[in-house]
Amino acid sequence: MRILGLDPGLGTTGWGLIEADGNRLRHVANGQIKTDSAAPLPRRLAHLADQLDALLADHPADGAAVEEVFVNKNPQSTLKLGQARGVVIMVAARAGLDVGEYAARLVKKAVVGNGNADKVQVHAMIARLLPGAAICGPDAADALAVAVTHAHHLASQVRLPRA
Amino acid sequence: MRILGLDPGLGTTGWGLIEADGNRLRHVANGQIKTDSAAPLPRRLAHLADQLDALLADHPADGAAVEEVFVNKNPQSTLKLGQARGVVIMVAARAGLDVGEYAARLVKKAVVGNGNADKVQVHAMIARLLPGAAICGPDAADALAVAVTHAHHLASQVRLPRA
Repeated sequence: MRILGLDPGLGTTGWGLIEADGNRLRHVANGQIKTDSAAPLPRRLAHLADQLDALLADHPADGAAVEEVFVNKNPQSTLKLGQARGVVIMVAARAGLDVGEYAARLVKKAVVGNGNADKVQVHAMIARLLPGAAICGPDAADALAVAVTHAHHLASQVRLPRA
Repeated sequence: MRILGLDPGLGTTGWGLIEADGNRLRHVANGQIKTDSAAPLPRRLAHLADQLDALLADHPADGAAVEEVFVNKNPQSTLKLGQARGVVIMVAARAGLDVGEYAARLVKKAVVGNGNADKVQVHAMIARLLPGAAICGPDAADALAVAVTHAHHLASQVRLPRA
């Protein structure tokens, strides 16, 4: 199945698409959607939604995943991030995708094997797990990391016997 | 022109549509969009977007307005509100509407004439300014208040000579 990882942000939203066959993973594509910081908020959010719709049309996915948000920072930043995140999650849900949410700690654990890994370790491991992927920036790398986490989560669900 | 006021929230989004002819205002319709708190976030956001799209199809507007957010509270609430607000603003922008943003103080001043007015005063004045409106709840009243503010703002812009 194809899994789209998303790292929402008002300025830059990273995305990364992988193909998962159980625990075997393959990179398909990744990118970053940027909005013009000089444009009014409604235009920026509409642009983000338009670009995501186009992305989902070009690269159909079977599932999506985002990182849970760590809100313990500047409330203005939380509001901005929330607005972009709402749009991103809504567009994926409207396209018929289930959207998994994973805590940052879980993403680090899934990718590096250590919930306290730093960004550099996560990105290095993503490049190893998805050989041949030209990762176009840190937000795209984060998006691929959450896609990998979702793939692991689904694979472990399949392996477990049902109650 | 028809102005759609919006009071975004993840649980309840109020909306109020008025017809403004300079300073003459007329109520057209108001309502509240609710999402199921037991449903997953992506479903709630998609439902909100679907309902708003249907609303804009049934009641075309020429402009929209929302209140600016006061973020000085619980960061989890700010994130939730931000997610709903992003969806609401994006749907309006994608429908081709300009979306005005007004500080709560300005809304109170426009409606009651006093930036420190309380909710009860604002709602009582909305009922007076828009006679015959059956206001379906506090979020719809807030939405009508921001629509009235936008109408006043546009009327004062028209009255002022251009530099």
